[in-house]
Amino acid sequence: MADSPDCDLKSLSPLQLFERVTEQGEKVRALKAGKAPKDEIDAAVRMLLSLKLSYKTTTGQDYQAGLPPKDLVLINNGTAKEEDEDLVDPWNVQTSNAKGVDYDKLIVRFGSSKIDTDLINRIERAIGQKPHHFLRRGIFFSHRDMDQVLDAYENKKPFYLYTGRGPSSQAMHVGHLIPFMFTKWLQEVFDVPLVIQLTDDEKYLWKDMTIEKAYEYARENAKDIIACGFDINKTFIFSDLDYLGTSAGFYKNVVKVQKHVTFNQVKGIFGFTDSDCIGKISFPAIQAAPSFSSSFPQIFNGKENIQCLIPCAIDQDPYFRMTRDVAPRIGQPKPALLHSVFFPALQGAQTKMSASDPNSSIFLTDTPKQIKTKINKHAFSGGRDTIEEHRKYGGNCDVDVSFMYLTFFLEDDDRLQQLKQAYTSGELLTGELKKVLIETMQPLVAAHQERRKQVTDKIVKQFMTPRKLAFEF
Amino acid sequence: MADSPDCDLKSLSPLQLFERVTEQGEKVRALKAGKAPKDEIDAAVRMLLSLKLSYKTTTGQDYQAGLPPKDLVLINNGTAKEEDEDLVDPWNVQTSNAKGVDYDKLIVRFGSSKIDTDLINRIERAIGQKPHHFLRRGIFFSHRDMDQVLDAYENKKPFYLYTGRGPSSQAMHVGHLIPFMFTKWLQEVFDVPLVIQLTDDEKYLWKDMTIEKAYEYARENAKDIIACGFDINKTFIFSDLDYLGTSAGFYKNVVKVQKHVTFNQVKGIFGFTDSDCIGKISFPAIQAAPSFSSSFPQIFNGKENIQCLIPCAIDQDPYFRMTRDVAPRIGQPKPALLHSVFFPALQGAQTKMSASDPNSSIFLTDTPKQIKTKINKHAFSGGRDTIEEHRKYGGNCDVDVSFMYLTFFLEDDDRLQQLKQAYTSGELLTGELKKVLIETMQPLVAAHQERRKQVTDKIVKQFMTPRKLAFEF
Repeated sequence: MADSPDCDLKSLSPLQLFERVTEQGEKVRALKAGKAPKDEIDAAVRMLLSLKLSYKTTTGQDYQAGLPPKDLVLINNGTAKEEDEDLVDPWNVQTSNAKGVDYDKLIVRFGSSKIDTDLINRIERAIGQKPHHFLRRGIFFSHRDMDQVLDAYENKKPFYLYTGRGPSSQAMHVGHLIPFMFTKWLQEVFDVPLVIQLTDDEKYLWKDMTIEKAYEYARENAKDIIACGFDINKTFIFSDLDYLGTSAGFYKNVVKVQKHVTFNQVKGIFGFTDSDCIGKISFPAIQAAPSFSSSFPQIFNGKENIQCLIPCAIDQDPYFRMTRDVAPRIGQPKPALLHSVFFPALQGAQTKMSASDPNSSIFLTDTPKQIKTKINKHAFSGGRDTIEEHRKYGGNCDVDVSFMYLTFFLEDDDRLQQLKQAYTSGELLTGELKKVLIETMQPLVAAHQERRKQVTDKIVKQFMTPRKLAFEF
Repeated sequence: MADSPDCDLKSLSPLQLFERVTEQGEKVRALKAGKAPKDEIDAAVRMLLSLKLSYKTTTGQDYQAGLPPKDLVLINNGTAKEEDEDLVDPWNVQTSNAKGVDYDKLIVRFGSSKIDTDLINRIERAIGQKPHHFLRRGIFFSHRDMDQVLDAYENKKPFYLYTGRGPSSQAMHVGHLIPFMFTKWLQEVFDVPLVIQLTDDEKYLWKDMTIEKAYEYARENAKDIIACGFDINKTFIFSDLDYLGTSAGFYKNVVKVQKHVTFNQVKGIFGFTDSDCIGKISFPAIQAAPSFSSSFPQIFNGKENIQCLIPCAIDQDPYFRMTRDVAPRIGQPKPALLHSVFFPALQGAQTKMSASDPNSSIFLTDTPKQIKTKINKHAFSGGRDTIEEHRKYGGNCDVDVSFMYLTFFLEDDDRLQQLKQAYTSGELLTGELKKVLIETMQPLVAAHQERRKQVTDKIVKQFMTPRKLAFEF
């Protein structure tokens, strides 16, 4: 890095400028700590002030250490997170609030936009049908550039969907289905191609797991994903470990992203340290690449610049903030996003769900009996301690996990409204609410298991074979 | 990283231990600089001492800041390079000595082994013919584990050759041919498969160059490489940008290496900084991957564990020191190496050769007239200022670039010896020595150009198509 701050600051992105200021600050500290000559320290301080000024001019904000410019806010760096804030990044979700993460605050911190009634109405007009209950109930609550996707759609311009999963184990729970259920609906109503990334390479890098195991999990998880009902003619599912070795376009996009993101940036965005392996450090580019249609020449006929829309849980947003920062610099459109809330553990929204704790959620392999026992035994209740108190004061739907699960899985709006009213008023007891949940989840899981049984290895192979889909580009 | 040093230090490699000590040292400094509580500093210092002890027990050496354990010596970190030492890394070769880099010192610093008469004799016995003049004249002067390769060869176990080139421009000079001329000879005498990596991705990451340009240079350079006379049935040439998207095995090895190398390690080995892009940081894994036969399932029938031998200029050694450190941890054999000296610029061994300065070397596209003019005008002379002095005191072959070039390209040992003797005694004048060089280089370059003309796009495509070679595995 040159010592002169005026070289090409105007060509730098806000994040790059932020990084320059941070580096210069570190340099000043190092000089002071090393008792460098006064004139050297003075020169470094002058440079720091000059860089801070450039930062302010460009972003309209004062430089604050550890707090990158809006739209690129740090999320898991201790300095950026205030005392009572929730911790949300691709590897951690922590909150001390029984209601769960404060999503309105998260929108402000992440610099995304709320999915409001206007947007939901616009979606309804565009697709000519009632929007999915995940939208109506605020389960998908935040977005980036969804209006642009609707603009494109209304002008008959193509776009495509991209979502994914990190296959960390064979055991998927019902919460893992949320993005896939919603993506399936989006695919149906918009009639667009869909790519699903299984980041088996990520799991190998992060976990104590062999490559073979990670790949095996990817294929097993693919079965559960396919069982959600995706159209085989419109959907391409891929394992990174597989697809990188079969795609002419994917690695080129990976390298392009890797050229335009520095270690300082991934350190800021993901909290990586010098002790992290270089695989982790460069992995964000692998999750970024499917945002660009040229990563799938077999689907898009080599066309670049086809708009991508990514439905995902909001903890994945850091990857795509980075992707959106890089996109214009490599001549690609920024992907649009739809963010979902997190799926709560049975024990309550502030506890951590864990695939290794079978009681923390309902798993896709659970029997009707297991489902019943789990809900009855473990689902955190918002009810009162005694029947008398409950009848008198009513239950609290905001913290009741059975009710939360019903907002995800009970499609009937009227029924859900009735349950809420009855539970809040005390008319409905916890056991009765749990019974409704059990009766909702048992057939839902059984039907999933039935569909999964139909998913043969041959079908998995078809979904995972790079090929043209039922669209012309 | 856990705070307890005793957890699993024994499972750490010397380099990882080195890194732990370095980190802990930094932590102590940070605590002191931040005026942390005394007991906290004391605890950190105790830990540091304990780590240093583990380091000494494991490596038999005292820990020295900036100086990693032998066989993994830092090479471009200022702290490791003494005042009068040469600078040698994949991007820089600098020396202040007119004779060029001190290679004996480099062997000690890099922790490699000298190619001595015993080894050369053993090679002669193994292949049943006179070793290449590059070996006899010390142009390939250093090695790692060449005895193991010979053991394998004598026991009829297979091995393969791997070399490469970073295609930074279309303009290749005669010095670029050295590793390829030698590799061709190795391939012939040992009759083994050869893979040649063109790191177009590296050039894209390091230079201000588009992906398309880097790929174009790779294909152009392939023509010059093919013109060296490699056997199309035994040689696979690949561009990273191409091959990564067509190989089932390559990316898996890349990810394996990336999991086992930290940012701290590449910082120490290659001098990367926090401002470097994540592509550079993870690139060493891409250059490491061809060292493992499983990166080429089409050639080795999916077999792992086939020994690799890498002939290369010694500036590439850092990549392979890293590779050798990782290999046993991912269950792969360490690649063996043969290191060459650097090819001097026409202006002298201490000046930098540059593809952008056409006068710094003889290029493969030069006409006979250009070759003559360049040598006469620019080849640094070890002769005396006047004919009288030259006759009286003689010339100095150690610094004379014409003589150096002849050691590379004049195959006739007797003739070279005569020239040396005649020049040193003053019998032969500079102009006469230059004439010999001109007469050696003109037909050599012309013959190369003739062979290159025969290399059609179709032939390039054949060489670069992943395929089985003429060997059974």
